[in-house]
Amino acid sequence: MPPPESPFPRRKTRTVQVGRVRLGSGHPIAVQSMTTTATTDVAATAAQVDRLSRAGADIVRLAVPTVTAAEALRAVRDRTDVPLVADIHFNARLALAALDAGADKIRLNPGNTPLADDLDRVVEAAGRHGAAIRIGVNSGSVMPRDEPLQRPHTPRQMTDRMVETVCRYLEWFQSRGFHSLVLSLKASDVPTTLTAYRRMAALCDYPLHLGVTAAGPREEAVMKTALGLGPLLCDGIGDTLRVSLTGDPVPEIQVGRRMLEVLGIEPLRGVEIISCPTCGRCQLDLTALATRLYAATRDIKAPLRVAVMGCVVNGPGEAREADLGVAGGQGFGMLFRHGRPV
Amino acid sequence: MPPPESPFPRRKTRTVQVGRVRLGSGHPIAVQSMTTTATTDVAATAAQVDRLSRAGADIVRLAVPTVTAAEALRAVRDRTDVPLVADIHFNARLALAALDAGADKIRLNPGNTPLADDLDRVVEAAGRHGAAIRIGVNSGSVMPRDEPLQRPHTPRQMTDRMVETVCRYLEWFQSRGFHSLVLSLKASDVPTTLTAYRRMAALCDYPLHLGVTAAGPREEAVMKTALGLGPLLCDGIGDTLRVSLTGDPVPEIQVGRRMLEVLGIEPLRGVEIISCPTCGRCQLDLTALATRLYAATRDIKAPLRVAVMGCVVNGPGEAREADLGVAGGQGFGMLFRHGRPV
Repeated sequence: MPPPESPFPRRKTRTVQVGRVRLGSGHPIAVQSMTTTATTDVAATAAQVDRLSRAGADIVRLAVPTVTAAEALRAVRDRTDVPLVADIHFNARLALAALDAGADKIRLNPGNTPLADDLDRVVEAAGRHGAAIRIGVNSGSVMPRDEPLQRPHTPRQMTDRMVETVCRYLEWFQSRGFHSLVLSLKASDVPTTLTAYRRMAALCDYPLHLGVTAAGPREEAVMKTALGLGPLLCDGIGDTLRVSLTGDPVPEIQVGRRMLEVLGIEPLRGVEIISCPTCGRCQLDLTALATRLYAATRDIKAPLRVAVMGCVVNGPGEAREADLGVAGGQGFGMLFRHGRPV
Repeated sequence: MPPPESPFPRRKTRTVQVGRVRLGSGHPIAVQSMTTTATTDVAATAAQVDRLSRAGADIVRLAVPTVTAAEALRAVRDRTDVPLVADIHFNARLALAALDAGADKIRLNPGNTPLADDLDRVVEAAGRHGAAIRIGVNSGSVMPRDEPLQRPHTPRQMTDRMVETVCRYLEWFQSRGFHSLVLSLKASDVPTTLTAYRRMAALCDYPLHLGVTAAGPREEAVMKTALGLGPLLCDGIGDTLRVSLTGDPVPEIQVGRRMLEVLGIEPLRGVEIISCPTCGRCQLDLTALATRLYAATRDIKAPLRVAVMGCVVNGPGEAREADLGVAGGQGFGMLFRHGRPV
């Protein structure tokens, strides 16, 4: 049963157009990822964009470290309708090349791309192409590269540095009348991420792109992302998000979408297995049953809650709340369908 | 480097003593789990309690479904200093037996244990033994068992039912002058869990035991727990927590403690691997490197942040912020120790 509406009212923002997708509080939270292919390998990149799109990606970002990569982006652009973002660092002229090649948004990193004349041409080109710009600060690249040893020492100093960096950049774009802006303030540290986004959310009405950067091995990354993004999403902060996982990017989309389902922000799209943790009361081999059921139901796209419970305490109740429920006891089992014993 | 203090001020609560552990805002958040052995198997149960304790459990709960199990709890009690909680359902006389057997806390489920004369004897015994009582509501057992088809239909109705159930129970204990109480309101649905705890937190000053019940397969359970508990912990709500995972309970403790580290509530106690998600700029086989490093460092108990980054964008910055950092580029690598290139 889809939730009637998100339980968490969104922070009010402007709307920013990124290709066919609109970002902002008037629109669903967009889930995005980034390709891991060399962008210059057009066939591999286009195939990965397609896989991401089929997995539910609303937006896909590509690394554009060279002019050749910008040209490749043009070829990928020709093969897909998915909004494409060019990830730019160090060199504003690559942003120009990417905009000319059809990027729907470019991401600039204030930590390595100074506010200089080249950026005036980027603003002009983005305006002309109707493209958006993300001002994307990372804790790992927020300090000027010529002060390698003057690193911030406390989370508070790092947060200050990130917010100040975005604000300085933001004012520069605003002074040029450019407002198709999305902001991000990612840190590998969760409290820093939370504080940076909360402070920025209070300072402006631009859509925010959420993420915890450099998150580590899979389960650790899922946990860190959930701990970093959950409190923000529950406060209505965040208009697009990216889950960072090391490896193939398709799970980034699956995890991101699942997070929105779990929070009740998006309706359930597949099968949810609810199983009890088992305890000294458990009277079935529940772990095996839940694992088999999970594997067997991954491809089902209908929204279904299936409860598998091991005893008579919470079993009948949870099983009753689910669309399909199994509650097992000693020598008997109860099967429920839409709350009725069958 | 341990954080100087939690970034999230705690909601003020009373202190409740559970064996050697104190629960409440004046004390660290206690991480607990529940045995999966048959409690009557004293040797297996005591061994699991010991494994949980060595993994960092502050409190361990045991199922006490029979008088024989209560007697077994007495034998386990004799073998460990870890505070033990007896999980009681349906039958208040089992609570009496568990208290006589030395339980430091009993958990009562208002969904299946009515407020009747037997509970007066439980309150008297808990007071005499200096034991605490958790009023533990679960969404799966919140309705009276004789109304199987009158299930709540919306998360809002479920939340109302859970909060009302706890309040009615709470008033009964308060009217008898008993205040060594801990409250929990677990649901398998995250928005319901969040709302129920937030409402209860505003209504009283008793310590809260956090959990998302019946959470499903491992990664799903970790995600649901992080999404359910993170927003509460960031609001200072929660004095003890249990992560529910299907299977061996030791990972429940590891995940619970790690969540507190990630949120900066507890100091780092082991090795944290920070790796970038890899993208089209990545110039190393980072997934393999991060996975090997993760496996190789699990047993190190010293707090160390190790960053493994695949390119020159965030690599040098993240590597610099970590205690040990590797940033790899094309044909070169940089190694940092406490922020200085070596």
